Amino acid sequence: MTPPPGPAASDPARARPADLLITGCTALTHGPQGAIVFIDDATIVVRDGLIVSVTASGAATAGTGPGVGPERAAEHIDGRGTVALPGLVNCHTHTPMVALRGLAEDLPAHAWFNEWIWPVESNLTERVVRLGARLACAEMIRGGVTTFADHYFAMDAVADVTEESGLRAVLGQAYFSSQGPEGRAASLDFALRRRGTAGGRVTTCLAPHAPYTVDDADLAATAGLAREHGLLVHLHAAENREQTDNSLARHGRTPIEVLEQAGLLDVDLLIAHATGLDTARDLPALRRARGRVAVATAPRGYLKFAWDTTPVRALREAGIPVGLATDGAASNNTLDVWESMTLTALVQKHAEHDPTWLTARQALDHATRQSARAVGLGEEIGSLAAGRRADIVLVDVTGPHTQPVHDLAATLVHSARSADVRTSVVDGRVLMRDRELLTVDVPQTVRELGELLPELIDRSHGRRVQEYEG
Amino acid sequence: MTPPPGPAASDPARARPADLLITGCTALTHGPQGAIVFIDDATIVVRDGLIVSVTASGAATAGTGPGVGPERAAEHIDGRGTVALPGLVNCHTHTPMVALRGLAEDLPAHAWFNEWIWPVESNLTERVVRLGARLACAEMIRGGVTTFADHYFAMDAVADVTEESGLRAVLGQAYFSSQGPEGRAASLDFALRRRGTAGGRVTTCLAPHAPYTVDDADLAATAGLAREHGLLVHLHAAENREQTDNSLARHGRTPIEVLEQAGLLDVDLLIAHATGLDTARDLPALRRARGRVAVATAPRGYLKFAWDTTPVRALREAGIPVGLATDGAASNNTLDVWESMTLTALVQKHAEHDPTWLTARQALDHATRQSARAVGLGEEIGSLAAGRRADIVLVDVTGPHTQPVHDLAATLVHSARSADVRTSVVDGRVLMRDRELLTVDVPQTVRELGELLPELIDRSHGRRVQEYEG
Repeated sequence: MTPPPGPAASDPARARPADLLITGCTALTHGPQGAIVFIDDATIVVRDGLIVSVTASGAATAGTGPGVGPERAAEHIDGRGTVALPGLVNCHTHTPMVALRGLAEDLPAHAWFNEWIWPVESNLTERVVRLGARLACAEMIRGGVTTFADHYFAMDAVADVTEESGLRAVLGQAYFSSQGPEGRAASLDFALRRRGTAGGRVTTCLAPHAPYTVDDADLAATAGLAREHGLLVHLHAAENREQTDNSLARHGRTPIEVLEQAGLLDVDLLIAHATGLDTARDLPALRRARGRVAVATAPRGYLKFAWDTTPVRALREAGIPVGLATDGAASNNTLDVWESMTLTALVQKHAEHDPTWLTARQALDHATRQSARAVGLGEEIGSLAAGRRADIVLVDVTGPHTQPVHDLAATLVHSARSADVRTSVVDGRVLMRDRELLTVDVPQTVRELGELLPELIDRSHGRRVQEYEG
Repeated sequence: MTPPPGPAASDPARARPADLLITGCTALTHGPQGAIVFIDDATIVVRDGLIVSVTASGAATAGTGPGVGPERAAEHIDGRGTVALPGLVNCHTHTPMVALRGLAEDLPAHAWFNEWIWPVESNLTERVVRLGARLACAEMIRGGVTTFADHYFAMDAVADVTEESGLRAVLGQAYFSSQGPEGRAASLDFALRRRGTAGGRVTTCLAPHAPYTVDDADLAATAGLAREHGLLVHLHAAENREQTDNSLARHGRTPIEVLEQAGLLDVDLLIAHATGLDTARDLPALRRARGRVAVATAPRGYLKFAWDTTPVRALREAGIPVGLATDGAASNNTLDVWESMTLTALVQKHAEHDPTWLTARQALDHATRQSARAVGLGEEIGSLAAGRRADIVLVDVTGPHTQPVHDLAATLVHSARSADVRTSVVDGRVLMRDRELLTVDVPQTVRELGELLPELIDRSHGRRVQEYEG
């Protein structure tokens, strides 16, 4: 029997040089049941923006003979001393709000909204949004984020910036019912115009603000549009316990029950925060959901506002993926998803009074597979595996704060930091190499944004975009 | 009237060139009542290991004429784009335990102690302690720590490493009553032999382990020795609520009351953790204290073990300084005091259900003045002021994650990270410049330590140094 020809001989795609080859790293991969499996001395081959293979280098080089590389490639990254991870996903943010980072500190939520953020947001311009988003993209690339789900205004500017930065994004134009039907229409228009742009890196969604700012009719109409156009819906709900209590007092339903009645649990839905979940009433509703419903958790801001945290364990038992997020920098101060991973591990142990819960490996699962599913890209990203988009970050674990390594999962979750991300790749394109950003000019962006700040933060006009009652 | 001669003409010390000049930074200083005051475009002059002056550069250059520098100096650091802070103080750690970083994860305290740490510590060698401490010093220098309070075994090795690393330290040889009187005697011997060494950078203390492992007679004898020799006492107490409950069940006294009865509240005392404080009983005891009593808080580990946190607000009301700490890396995973500062701000808001409490400026006060007082060096370090030791770190705030700056205190506490520390200076000597360590060889230390790990973590012997009952 004649042996079959090798793939290099039979497959023209395999005969072409790879676009990118990463060698010598330890690769974080997922086993058949989703368990995290580290492959030492791994080789990652990338072609046409996709991962072709992730193999232990012994396997990759088998049969190629001594001194012969396993693959030719246009670009080679020496990954020794690093761990390759699927790029992090920021499942809920408002990128342009980095312009307000540190502006309104040490305040309760109602003062934060009514006295600071919503007055200042009435000064927003397309140019502030563009520069803020650009600075945010720089921060996220440096922090190992390769995909972000953004929920804000003037989103065409954010889509433009996504395109120029090289990042992947899930973008939604926010609206309140106070804007009238135009708000919802503009959100749909944006979602249909920009979906699939930036070489497929931009996905879009509908983005009603929250059940306390968008009325039942608007929410039901949103569910209808989502079904009609196959769009994800991304909104805030049950942000804190007070909102749930107020919702119950006002109309006898929790925020999640409001979403259910509007039909939003029957479409693909990304709920930000859900720290105010009424587990007795809301978990059954979430279990009945026919859509792919997920939650984004941003634990830093909950500590800062002195809220409870997202009930991750209860959501897990209800089969709801929980992705990691940062919220906007105006409340969270950073877009550091790595920190969100660490804090999720720490805060969940504390909230459940159980040091054995939310292990480092579970935290990494939230950071990878669950976050990818949360933003509707569960088949495209979130895992280093053949056929997935080549969104890869290399994390340096040679620093004194990450040595020695007894348990690599613990090293990543509890010792490593976002600043240890050395190289970031999206769709096979290197966006940061050895900490150097290749697609964003930070000093120029900071300078231009700085010129706009005095006008942006002027609250003397007495206006606000909305009233927070929760 | 003849004007007095300028200081440069009259004072020979002023005529000598400065040893170090830092220009163009923003300096974090303290006003007369301790309020934090940022001085923009500051010049810091260092001579003979001390800060000579911190001035706005307009003031420093007055009268020197165009083109003439305000000071000549042997060494100059351009601090533009950075904030100069007093070096951070790690008020409670076990540096050699970095050798066990990540070894025993996701466990409750009793299993962590009895099944992992205390069996492994029965394998400790002087060489492991030396290499672990060296790696820890590298991590701390890179994280902006300039002083650490260490409580461990084989402390002569740690004192040697402190000397070679250039750091400042407050060192105590730990002991249990199970060692017999020799434990306490060795702690005293170490304290007397090594105090004031390393050019005065090493301060020493007595280091009984805790009220649950050191009996009343030993604690009382320790208090007597502390008084006799003018030594600080550094120990663990009320680490968690369970310990307080067990102490009450065993002998009707809280751990703090045990310390009080032993006379330890009448000497200078540094208590690690105190998350299990019985505020009704213990705060009056702490108010009655005649010694300088302080608490070190290491909030990351409390989250990880699912404990309550240190009651910082109650301690503040009782006039007890609270310094920041990391504990050892075996439980805490890092020696990142910057993270402890951030977590203290976040966790205290959450614990007190008050987002307006523990502001960014309060967090910086804990990181500077209160930490210095906690380790007994309140007059020497903790503030950038003339006459203080020149322990200074420069923190880069030009990164995208720290821009724009609306409130520099918030930028430092909530956006900046330990990795933003660019340069570290102790006693006027530069230990890290532009992220490059100048006194520790990390790869060599990691290599040598790695060779010792298999023997270190072997638990097949079934021994442990002590039994944890809490």
